[in-house]
Amino acid sequence: MGGVSTVGDRVDRADRVPKQDRSRATRQRLLEAAVACLAEHGWAGSTVSVVAERAGVSRGAAQHHFPTREDLFTAAVEYVAEERSTALRALFPEGAAGDRRAVVSALVDLYTGPLFRAALHLWVAASNEEQLRPRVTELEARVGRETHRIAVDLLGADESRPGARESVQGLLDMARGLGLANLLTDDTARRDRVVAQWAALLDDALGEASG
Amino acid sequence: MGGVSTVGDRVDRADRVPKQDRSRATRQRLLEAAVACLAEHGWAGSTVSVVAERAGVSRGAAQHHFPTREDLFTAAVEYVAEERSTALRALFPEGAAGDRRAVVSALVDLYTGPLFRAALHLWVAASNEEQLRPRVTELEARVGRETHRIAVDLLGADESRPGARESVQGLLDMARGLGLANLLTDDTARRDRVVAQWAALLDDALGEASG
Repeated sequence: MGGVSTVGDRVDRADRVPKQDRSRATRQRLLEAAVACLAEHGWAGSTVSVVAERAGVSRGAAQHHFPTREDLFTAAVEYVAEERSTALRALFPEGAAGDRRAVVSALVDLYTGPLFRAALHLWVAASNEEQLRPRVTELEARVGRETHRIAVDLLGADESRPGARESVQGLLDMARGLGLANLLTDDTARRDRVVAQWAALLDDALGEASG
Repeated sequence: MGGVSTVGDRVDRADRVPKQDRSRATRQRLLEAAVACLAEHGWAGSTVSVVAERAGVSRGAAQHHFPTREDLFTAAVEYVAEERSTALRALFPEGAAGDRRAVVSALVDLYTGPLFRAALHLWVAASNEEQLRPRVTELEARVGRETHRIAVDLLGADESRPGARESVQGLLDMARGLGLANLLTDDTARRDRVVAQWAALLDDALGEASG
């Protein structure tokens, strides 16, 4: 604390970090690099080696964590999706009691960044590659269920109300479509207008927020 | 007429077909084969040679019609999208006077077949390939405008009514997202429920059909 650390200091400190924590940090760096790589270069340009280099991790260490390319990239999309979900819940601690329109915007935003691009590349690759397909199908189901659960909670939707469940599902489908529309061009201005209109329609469909 | 045609007969008849018509038929066969190929094998597995073989056309003839891979596949997606649009208009000759719910279903169906798969592969490839990107961006804008126009006409939406334009856009975004959800698994049952609910919300938003 306070002093300029020497190389010796740093090595000492690294030694004191429990091995398990260092392994977890390496794993996280690999997962984040994998999503960034997939978003930028697509499936064809994404290999364990490329990600290891990007994360500053040896190829051997990367393969210790993720034996196959499929392991690495499906784990990466799941990990980053969980991070984003946690962040989204933290953003609306008051949940349904808060601003529903703001919740709709935040849900739609889940589909416009690097995570969506990465997931899209994985998805499209899985449609042609038998090795990838079952893995991505399962991943999609898990992430989809979790996103639906968060949306229902944050929107204060009462799923026993007729049409409420399908209204929330349709919103998430629309969000996915808006993500696709943003892939090649910046679609922000149009998206904002569409979201404002459908948030109003959704608000009517859902009625009072349930707590 | 009536007789069993011999090889000689067929050659004679082919000779009598004007050259221009034969060229157009070859072009159409190539375009249809290109969409099927892209839908099944993705961008990486789609070349002019593969399509030429599938269409039963010589590689030279294919290259005469489409000098580059980009030319062939962007033309193919545009051609098939136009075919589907024409078919959709023909399906609802009475337009806005007809069944709005059926129109919504038919619009959503535009995004669940081989054409959507092909377009998706092209779209995703364009996000990483500089050569393809401007071509696909333009194509997307043209096809998107045309689809919006058809949707407005068939739904009888009065775009001077506040929110009507954005309601129709949101519907098409949702349709695109539903297409994505159908990529790896058959999502028909869930999609039908979502479409029924959102068609009802849209109906409220659009009000009386304008002629």
